[in-house]
Amino acid sequence: MAEAFDAVEIIEAKRDGRLLTDAQIDWVIDAYTRGVVADEQMSALAMAVFWRGLERPELARWTAAMIASGERMDFSGLSRPAVDKHSSGGVGDKITLPLAPLVAACGVIVPQLSGRGLGHTGGTLDKLEAIPGWRAAIGKAEMAAQLEEVGAVICQAGSGLAPADRKLYALRDTTGTVASIPLIASSIMSKKIAEGAGALILDVKCGSGAFMADLAQARLLAQTMVDLGTDAGVHTVALVTDMDTPLGLTAGNALEVREAVEVLAGGGPPDVTGLTLILARAMLDAAAAVVEKAGHRGLGFAAGSAEAARWADSIRCLDPADRLRDGRAMDSWRRLIAAQGGDPDADLPWAQATETLTAEADGVLARLDAKQVGVAAWRLGAGRARQGDPVQAGAGVVCHAKPGDVIRRGQPLLTLHTDTPDRFGRAKAALAGAWTIAATAPPPRPVVLEQIGGHA
Amino acid sequence: MAEAFDAVEIIEAKRDGRLLTDAQIDWVIDAYTRGVVADEQMSALAMAVFWRGLERPELARWTAAMIASGERMDFSGLSRPAVDKHSSGGVGDKITLPLAPLVAACGVIVPQLSGRGLGHTGGTLDKLEAIPGWRAAIGKAEMAAQLEEVGAVICQAGSGLAPADRKLYALRDTTGTVASIPLIASSIMSKKIAEGAGALILDVKCGSGAFMADLAQARLLAQTMVDLGTDAGVHTVALVTDMDTPLGLTAGNALEVREAVEVLAGGGPPDVTGLTLILARAMLDAAAAVVEKAGHRGLGFAAGSAEAARWADSIRCLDPADRLRDGRAMDSWRRLIAAQGGDPDADLPWAQATETLTAEADGVLARLDAKQVGVAAWRLGAGRARQGDPVQAGAGVVCHAKPGDVIRRGQPLLTLHTDTPDRFGRAKAALAGAWTIAATAPPPRPVVLEQIGGHA
Repeated sequence: MAEAFDAVEIIEAKRDGRLLTDAQIDWVIDAYTRGVVADEQMSALAMAVFWRGLERPELARWTAAMIASGERMDFSGLSRPAVDKHSSGGVGDKITLPLAPLVAACGVIVPQLSGRGLGHTGGTLDKLEAIPGWRAAIGKAEMAAQLEEVGAVICQAGSGLAPADRKLYALRDTTGTVASIPLIASSIMSKKIAEGAGALILDVKCGSGAFMADLAQARLLAQTMVDLGTDAGVHTVALVTDMDTPLGLTAGNALEVREAVEVLAGGGPPDVTGLTLILARAMLDAAAAVVEKAGHRGLGFAAGSAEAARWADSIRCLDPADRLRDGRAMDSWRRLIAAQGGDPDADLPWAQATETLTAEADGVLARLDAKQVGVAAWRLGAGRARQGDPVQAGAGVVCHAKPGDVIRRGQPLLTLHTDTPDRFGRAKAALAGAWTIAATAPPPRPVVLEQIGGHA
Repeated sequence: MAEAFDAVEIIEAKRDGRLLTDAQIDWVIDAYTRGVVADEQMSALAMAVFWRGLERPELARWTAAMIASGERMDFSGLSRPAVDKHSSGGVGDKITLPLAPLVAACGVIVPQLSGRGLGHTGGTLDKLEAIPGWRAAIGKAEMAAQLEEVGAVICQAGSGLAPADRKLYALRDTTGTVASIPLIASSIMSKKIAEGAGALILDVKCGSGAFMADLAQARLLAQTMVDLGTDAGVHTVALVTDMDTPLGLTAGNALEVREAVEVLAGGGPPDVTGLTLILARAMLDAAAAVVEKAGHRGLGFAAGSAEAARWADSIRCLDPADRLRDGRAMDSWRRLIAAQGGDPDADLPWAQATETLTAEADGVLARLDAKQVGVAAWRLGAGRARQGDPVQAGAGVVCHAKPGDVIRRGQPLLTLHTDTPDRFGRAKAALAGAWTIAATAPPPRPVVLEQIGGHA
């Protein structure tokens, strides 16, 4: 009954622009998780945070309080170092699929706790569930065993991680308090820090198909998350990457798995393969930096030892592209899929109906809007409007050209896939004005716009 | 099921500083009253309004939507014009008690829907309930009859007026969104406009014992309410009045009734009598202005007619002090009390225990803090901490001196009254440092600090 604080005082403090104390933050997150702070109080506080922000120490404490609301995982007992990766979500972002087995094939463990899609961005688990038999839910012991044997797991996060965040995230979704950088950063980082990897690579998407459309905002989010990770002792590096146009040529579940397999087979669209290699390089460098500095129990290296430095150098010299060429990344993929019940040789589903949109003029594809393609794929059945809705494995959009490609009038630009052809109309409506055919090519846009953290 | 708007879009619009449309405001207030907009959404919107404010047309619409959530009263069918009065609440503010019968005795009807106290400010109904037999709840037909016969009613507002405000007010109380000028103004004015008098005098208290401690804030609240009333077609005038020190010499229910009766008998503390006469003058002038401009059905005057102008002049020439001197205000008081079941001759209760605090030095009383006296009276049992708590009729504080009075060491300054002597300790703690005895008198502070609206 005797609570340490009154929620109204804490709301008023933040509303009036004052710093919250550690004790206030600890109490309000804990009391909200316990239901003592009511939803209408927390939403008012979230709006006050939206307005006034959280200073770096407040945000670190807020995040720590969300972590403390649940359990923490610990991968420090594995035989090799573990590196985690997070993408802020985009259209056609299937990078986790080739990346996790590729990094595992390089000798670094990848425990990848992923989510499902909501709205126009797809979810990694939805994509993998297009593979017959594959299952997202695995237990802790199974996960530890698979990490040792395969080197990678892609699975759903248990409900025990940062339950305060789960509750707050659902609340923010209905109260107009989603788009706050400290709240986004603490939501992501509370889960990622609780997952317990010693190093973390963040892929912060920027552009029309991303949550952050603006480079300055994406950079601020990236910096905020890097600060949070660093303050929590996690080696954290963020890449801000382009999401003005879909990544690769596909958006949709089975469609994206096929593209990921192409990358693992040594092909694939250059932007997908390129970003996969860049992120693999960043993950390996992060593992090297952590081992060099802190040593590694499983490898038997003391902190700052010569063996640790040698191991770090060997990891830095390793070219992940070799693991695509020599087939070892593909081997890791097949073992990862099989370990989680999937058949890597099974035929992937195709949608029952397709419709192709063609170019209306000769020229160069100057623009293909990520958000609109994502919304079209969603409306075709690849995504869901509410948590728990089913998705169609075969639905989505295939792009036949990328910005910069020369286009002939009448040539196919996009093919829409769905099991429910009555959805074509709304999908096409979403694509109105989604592309521009111009006389000259647009300036090429790099995939990686910026790197935050991890510099020497 | 098909709602016209989505609450999140409306919250985001205000959060981002955009104007809300009339249709958005109408919907969100109505949907909140219906329970379609959830408490956590409304509290986030309230915080966004706290942050971004509401422009004058938005606020007028917001207030109109709250009025439209319930019933409206209508006094236009009475035989004489009606004028309403509202005080923002202070310590020792018993002005409604002498004011309503005084104005009624001048020929203008006063339908006074009042509230109960919460916290350190008392409530008019709690004060009158100290009179044996008096009841606050009366029906509509009874009210109309009493207004014709007595010329005044002081009663509790029915639950049918602005139910949206009732719901929003309770929400704001727990979510740190009380102290927002547009939300305060719309809360007060939605009820006052729904009460349906053609003219309204607002007494906006300013100082330590008031909600608005600062003159600039009090002035802004007053101007905002005058604008709202004016936009709704109600002749509205606000006086900003001092609340740095208690009004009169008493704070507490029966104690204040006694002081009100002194005023009606032609005596009373000069500040109470003075403010009563100033507010009576303002109410009479407002009635004159309304009748002069719009005529009056009951009086049989057409808008802009010579009879209406003559009536207005006669009201303007009338000195309400005469009605105190000639006993007609006291007659109205006795009839008002009796009409609502009270015995105007009954002995008023006294508290069972008293304790007197004395001056620690010779000098002049330079300061006596309204808020601290109010909190002491509350702790002695005169007020309540939660809605529905009982109050003690006899509890409160009697002041033996006012700022500016010469003081002798050892002379009584305050007498505390309570039925529960174990409360003396906490009451005295509230009074620590509540007064200052200085060598010289402070500059006199006027009772009326400013008038907003109603100028020629």
